[in-house]
Amino acid sequence: MKLFVFRLGHRPERDKRISTHVFLAARAFLCSSGFYSGSKDKELEESIKKVVKNWGGDFKIKYEGNWKKFIKNFPGIKIHLTMYGIPFQEKINEIRKNKENKLIIVGGEKVPGEVYEMADYNIAVTNQPHSEVSALAVFLHEFWQGKELKKDFKGKLKIIPQEKGKKITNNNC
Amino acid sequence: MKLFVFRLGHRPERDKRISTHVFLAARAFLCSSGFYSGSKDKELEESIKKVVKNWGGDFKIKYEGNWKKFIKNFPGIKIHLTMYGIPFQEKINEIRKNKENKLIIVGGEKVPGEVYEMADYNIAVTNQPHSEVSALAVFLHEFWQGKELKKDFKGKLKIIPQEKGKKITNNNC
Repeated sequence: MKLFVFRLGHRPERDKRISTHVFLAARAFLCSSGFYSGSKDKELEESIKKVVKNWGGDFKIKYEGNWKKFIKNFPGIKIHLTMYGIPFQEKINEIRKNKENKLIIVGGEKVPGEVYEMADYNIAVTNQPHSEVSALAVFLHEFWQGKELKKDFKGKLKIIPQEKGKKITNNNC
Repeated sequence: MKLFVFRLGHRPERDKRISTHVFLAARAFLCSSGFYSGSKDKELEESIKKVVKNWGGDFKIKYEGNWKKFIKNFPGIKIHLTMYGIPFQEKINEIRKNKENKLIIVGGEKVPGEVYEMADYNIAVTNQPHSEVSALAVFLHEFWQGKELKKDFKGKLKIIPQEKGKKITNNNC
């Protein structure tokens, strides 16, 4: 069973950093790949590839211009994260038990109404406005029940946790 | 016992949306106030005030130009969220048991080395790169052990969770 993240309607000028954070959170919290629609953004893709190259894992990012077709044809469960949805704590066990692949859809400012219809679940991480980045991370953390914290990414770079200061090992040196 | 968030080194051109998301996540996950250093940003402050006005609660945001003095003089426990720190799961129970007020410090690109020294805890939400927004939300979710999900913000606007679509009530209408 794999998790994928789909970032709807990326706008390079406005969303570059938020979309970058969405995909980095997706990677750190054990999604296999990220997809995005909106405008193609080489800089976004390169920044994610660079993190994967240095920090490990095999997270991939891919542009999908036709969001409607992509969501429709996704073979698995479609979960749309939205503040308007059902609180995740009411659905997370049911979602976790289902062993199909899962596409987690995160929107930008304006999500087309059809997305709510196409999703198998519209899920809220609190019904308050905050961020697609925080909603995604808390959802994934609850989905994995903390198992993601034990993942060894076997990266070129690795942090040795410190009470004070920074310590990184570089396995290529 | 109250939680506060301090966003270090805000740059209006580059960080506006990330800082906005940091403070919205801080509010949704039950921090009392947010502070920031770097450059003063009226637009950032207004966008947070507008959310509080519409969605309720009494979250406040304040600019603090002198970050060093502010952290030094904060009366309580100082927790710096950093990917270089000790995994939160090793410290969260100890932090939760302590009933002093807490300042949660989140950095931007370059965090001065002194911050690591001034903090009582340097805490990592995974030792992988992702986002100050996701790190903050997961930390707060674990701190409150999900209690934040029961909060009624008594806002003018309130979402009625839906399986499909959006439903908002406006208590002023």
